[in-house]
Amino acid sequence: MDKVKVIEIKQSVFSANDKQADALRAELKEKGIFLLNLMSSPGSGKTTTLTKTIEALKDEFKIGVMEADIDSDVDAKRIALTGAKAIQLHTGGMCHLDAGMTRQGLEGLDTSDVELAILENVGNLVCPAEFDTGATKNAMILSVPEGEDKPLKYPLMFSICDVVLINKIDVMPYFDFDLEQCKKNIRMRNPRAEIIPICAKTGEGIEQWAAWLRTQVKAARGEA
Amino acid sequence: MDKVKVIEIKQSVFSANDKQADALRAELKEKGIFLLNLMSSPGSGKTTTLTKTIEALKDEFKIGVMEADIDSDVDAKRIALTGAKAIQLHTGGMCHLDAGMTRQGLEGLDTSDVELAILENVGNLVCPAEFDTGATKNAMILSVPEGEDKPLKYPLMFSICDVVLINKIDVMPYFDFDLEQCKKNIRMRNPRAEIIPICAKTGEGIEQWAAWLRTQVKAARGEA
Repeated sequence: MDKVKVIEIKQSVFSANDKQADALRAELKEKGIFLLNLMSSPGSGKTTTLTKTIEALKDEFKIGVMEADIDSDVDAKRIALTGAKAIQLHTGGMCHLDAGMTRQGLEGLDTSDVELAILENVGNLVCPAEFDTGATKNAMILSVPEGEDKPLKYPLMFSICDVVLINKIDVMPYFDFDLEQCKKNIRMRNPRAEIIPICAKTGEGIEQWAAWLRTQVKAARGEA
Repeated sequence: MDKVKVIEIKQSVFSANDKQADALRAELKEKGIFLLNLMSSPGSGKTTTLTKTIEALKDEFKIGVMEADIDSDVDAKRIALTGAKAIQLHTGGMCHLDAGMTRQGLEGLDTSDVELAILENVGNLVCPAEFDTGATKNAMILSVPEGEDKPLKYPLMFSICDVVLINKIDVMPYFDFDLEQCKKNIRMRNPRAEIIPICAKTGEGIEQWAAWLRTQVKAARGEA
């Protein structure tokens, strides 16, 4: 698996990103496709979480993944090894994706045979929160080594997410990390967020996360 | 220590940021002040590293720290506990600081009694790399849990830094982290970067980092 498709995406020329995002969301709904926008800091475990998520759901749904990065295609190659359809999006230095860029990604992915589409956004807790991608739902990962105070410092990111995965819980004994305080900090920013502690490396918590995703994909396909 | 000074900084109205940065750097040189711009992902340990750095150097130099965050003042409070002068900069949602914003911060800090000024930039591996703050030197922290592949994904950040601190080396046994491969990845982006493995929590490596900083501050004061 040496070659993966790489798309050089351009920043949207449309200034009205919110309108573009709503239009994309409506189109995806019409087609019965669920699009997840997955965000986090660099190195919090997005790609490892996705490989475990794909393993848990690949027999039920047709999955397509867009890996966004400023450079490199290491993530798309890792995803392609799971058997899921995967493409790499290069953002040309851009720190986030907007709805127009996400649309270019979906066209490059070809969603005609996709039921669950996943966008792995650029690793960044600031800018991606400011641009609606048009995704059906937003999820983020906060990993234990980053610390439980992150909702205090990056309020917007936590407030726009439907799910917060707390990853790398296996290393909790080696860090000063208070899980209950972390949950309180998240709920302060977003009382309705689903909070799921996981360890992508060992698979702990992945079933609960996959169950949430399963419900969403089925709802998008009108099977709720 | 409940109150710290909080400055609400505004984005620079000057488009020619590079010129502003060069002008600021020249002014600082004239005054004999060394300004370090410290960058990293969220949660890689910037503030803990700074508290240990201040402990190592506070008897030699007058130190002033600007803590930039989108929200909260938890970092400035932690720094103030060391006895160093500390202010909090709020970026108003901005994902980086430019030279004009840094100048506002320095004015708020009051550098008349500062020899070593430190800007803790917003936690972000993308945008801060694109804006010259006018700092004398740039440093960044990559922490072990983030993974050794980060130089592949965030090339600009690694290429503009004079020093890369590899933090949290105490937890290396619990992560799939290859220190030699990490150094190779950093050198691929930046062959001249100083690379210093540290553990801010235990203090390991801080003396080597403090020695580098000592040389820089002395040079800025014409004591080289």
